[in-house]
Amino acid sequence: MTTPFDDLMAHARETAALEQVAGRLGWDQETVMPRGAAAQRSEEMAAMEGVLHARRTDPRVGDWLAALETDTLTAEDLAQVRLIRRAFDRATRVPARLSAEIARVTSRAQGIWAEARAADDFDAFAPTLAEVVSLKREEGAALSNGGDVYDAMLQDYEPGITGNELDALFGRLRPRLVALREAVLARPPAPALTGVFDEAAQMRLSRKVAGVFGYDMKRGRVDKAVHPFSSGSGQDVRITTRTAPTDPFNRLYSTIHEVGHAAYEQNVDPRYLLTPLGSGVSMGVHESQSRIYENQLGRSRAFLGWLWSEMRDAFGDLGLADEDSLYAAANGVHRGYIRTEADEVQYNLHILLRTDLERALISREIEVSDLEEAWNRRFEADFGYAVDRPSNGVLQDVHWSVGLFGYFPTYTLGNVYAGCLHGALRKAVPDLDAHLAAGDLAPATDWLRDKLQRHGGLREPLDTIAAATGEAPTEEPLLAYLETKFGALYGL
Amino acid sequence: MTTPFDDLMAHARETAALEQVAGRLGWDQETVMPRGAAAQRSEEMAAMEGVLHARRTDPRVGDWLAALETDTLTAEDLAQVRLIRRAFDRATRVPARLSAEIARVTSRAQGIWAEARAADDFDAFAPTLAEVVSLKREEGAALSNGGDVYDAMLQDYEPGITGNELDALFGRLRPRLVALREAVLARPPAPALTGVFDEAAQMRLSRKVAGVFGYDMKRGRVDKAVHPFSSGSGQDVRITTRTAPTDPFNRLYSTIHEVGHAAYEQNVDPRYLLTPLGSGVSMGVHESQSRIYENQLGRSRAFLGWLWSEMRDAFGDLGLADEDSLYAAANGVHRGYIRTEADEVQYNLHILLRTDLERALISREIEVSDLEEAWNRRFEADFGYAVDRPSNGVLQDVHWSVGLFGYFPTYTLGNVYAGCLHGALRKAVPDLDAHLAAGDLAPATDWLRDKLQRHGGLREPLDTIAAATGEAPTEEPLLAYLETKFGALYGL
Repeated sequence: MTTPFDDLMAHARETAALEQVAGRLGWDQETVMPRGAAAQRSEEMAAMEGVLHARRTDPRVGDWLAALETDTLTAEDLAQVRLIRRAFDRATRVPARLSAEIARVTSRAQGIWAEARAADDFDAFAPTLAEVVSLKREEGAALSNGGDVYDAMLQDYEPGITGNELDALFGRLRPRLVALREAVLARPPAPALTGVFDEAAQMRLSRKVAGVFGYDMKRGRVDKAVHPFSSGSGQDVRITTRTAPTDPFNRLYSTIHEVGHAAYEQNVDPRYLLTPLGSGVSMGVHESQSRIYENQLGRSRAFLGWLWSEMRDAFGDLGLADEDSLYAAANGVHRGYIRTEADEVQYNLHILLRTDLERALISREIEVSDLEEAWNRRFEADFGYAVDRPSNGVLQDVHWSVGLFGYFPTYTLGNVYAGCLHGALRKAVPDLDAHLAAGDLAPATDWLRDKLQRHGGLREPLDTIAAATGEAPTEEPLLAYLETKFGALYGL
Repeated sequence: MTTPFDDLMAHARETAALEQVAGRLGWDQETVMPRGAAAQRSEEMAAMEGVLHARRTDPRVGDWLAALETDTLTAEDLAQVRLIRRAFDRATRVPARLSAEIARVTSRAQGIWAEARAADDFDAFAPTLAEVVSLKREEGAALSNGGDVYDAMLQDYEPGITGNELDALFGRLRPRLVALREAVLARPPAPALTGVFDEAAQMRLSRKVAGVFGYDMKRGRVDKAVHPFSSGSGQDVRITTRTAPTDPFNRLYSTIHEVGHAAYEQNVDPRYLLTPLGSGVSMGVHESQSRIYENQLGRSRAFLGWLWSEMRDAFGDLGLADEDSLYAAANGVHRGYIRTEADEVQYNLHILLRTDLERALISREIEVSDLEEAWNRRFEADFGYAVDRPSNGVLQDVHWSVGLFGYFPTYTLGNVYAGCLHGALRKAVPDLDAHLAAGDLAPATDWLRDKLQRHGGLREPLDTIAAATGEAPTEEPLLAYLETKFGALYGL
């Protein structure tokens, strides 16, 4: 005789397994799918989505949840139930008609966005974006249950956070980031790598570095793709990478970034495999792992010392004077329009801009017809120069075209969390730099695995960070880290 | 307002799409899956099987079939309905408890078989095989609806054929195949390729040959795997291959064989994409395509003329005197125990042996405890020498351990069908050899596509062959082809 909890967990395990299958279909599409298979693949994806949607809204899940006796459950089991209940409520609040309509419109919108971006023509995209915004407002209203619509949207990516909390946090970040950007860009530019860097050598080096950062190749693999990404949970977590012949940092740091995501998934407690607890808890906490791997560790002066000899072994003369020059080159701050190419100083300004605009869009403070002008005005205010064309501005990111509203702020939340984790890590491992300088990442990655990664979805995002660091997350460690690091690098 | 037929087809399309997803999971497992992902993968596979089983037994399918008005349906639509009805009846006749038990036992049995084969110890496998046989007898009884149990099993692989028909057909094949084998093996052996053949050159040549045989790389890809296989239908049909450094024929002919399977799937009418008609109609007809590509075309004297210069370009001196020697080497008949290594003369004797034994097992004429002795007795009778150890005898094939009973005879049916198709092709394209000698396979592959492949599951297997050749299939063309070809090669 099974209990409602047993039934619930058996159902959740199968759903988790099917989600892995659907996710791997996405990996396949980006890496190995024959190019003539697109039409068939979209039917396959839609069929898998149909299966998953039916499972997520299965009325038996509601019955089991209602019949559950929670007195006898452990803290872990209660966390499983909490995540199952959230997913069930989320899935059942949105009418099937609306979900299907969003899928239909965003699938079309992505193509229209890509064409508009190529043509540098926001007006060609605006009517379609307006349709997406309208549908997402409707979905948000269904999800919000009478509460704030943008808050409801945030729960898909960062459960527990609100728009007002973001507003306060980002309001404290913005002036100090703007001031730091201004001060840094007034100084002479950093040295840069020049030349062409052999692809095979780049591949060998990035594989070695992936291993150094703890990526387990027995439960993963590295393939080439147009965009770097990490995919899958548990025993099968794959990353992709790409090579830029004149910029070895591109492959190297995108690999370290994806290894941060992948290590989080690989290091979740095996007891949680294929359960709701068995994955990273939120987009923001996920990004904290990729960012601390990439930036606080991977772009540290100590690690660049180790990398200097590795890169010289791999590529020969780098055209740079010494380790300090390589450190400066890996941390160069340059004018630019594009979020994905931004450095640590400017990246969050890109996010703050998008967060404010999308929140205003959802709350109807602005409409899509106002968006391009609002973007350009804000960009000039925060970056000090004007957007030259829509593909460098409002059209640069895919997110809104595919209906991702509430997603952008998790990038900056991840950076804020990474700042907190880095502060606590430095206290826990006082000789960290000596290890980093020797290419020994284990003290850092072991600490992150033990304090954070192994717990998967056990705690809510903010509690996950607080449990790891011992205090509630704030922006202060990130700001202090950035001001100290770039102050020294640029002689401020 | 949709009709029951519309509902039935919409459901069938989604099922077909999900079957493609499940199949690709199998491809992934054999080619790119991280080796540490096996446990998670088996849960993923089981979850997909659960989804497919629920769809196949969905009571709505029964309702739609019952409500269907067939008067207005086209011949194609009627064929769709016929296949849907067959799959529904098949799925609903077997109790869920029995299906689950078979899945559980065969999953375990495969490992036990592999260990027993490695240890050359049939007794270590026999009790488990007895369990499998007992469960498969029970399943066959459920499927047979009071009819013959082995006949019911055959329907999973070759719908429309019966054990008695096989008995008659194979009874006519056996004496002439035994006589041909005896006569050939009494003659001096054929010349053989010697040396080591560069892997990259083997890869390039096999890719070129795959293209020559019409494999469409835009809707496919070639990867390395332990066993060559073809996977998928429609727009995404992938093949695998392997390289033997001292035997370039291994990779070359296994590639041509898999291209035969893959071309059949790629060439089905695109209107049938992701429907029951959208795949090859049976295992036997599938094997007819792989075999005619590999043997009647790929091992023909004319094609070996073209291959002679291609192989010399790829590998340099082959250590053979001329085109005739290469033709003889590609068609060498040697003593051996292993089905998968057998030549055209001996291959079907392996199948006849297995078919008779498995039919006797299912009908309880013999039991698992009699199997090894029965195998060895029959082998010596047909091959003229004794089995030296179980791994060269009764333990050599995986099929029975995973519950495949009724599958073996489709290999020989495929060869018989290939013989019929080859006869008709030669009449339709009198100058075929001139094309083959120039490496131009198009007249053959176009004919097969037009006469057979494009129709997918439209007609029953025997009708599929009869529609292509203009007459009911018999063993005579295959036997005449083998006796003529090997009579000439071995100077009989």
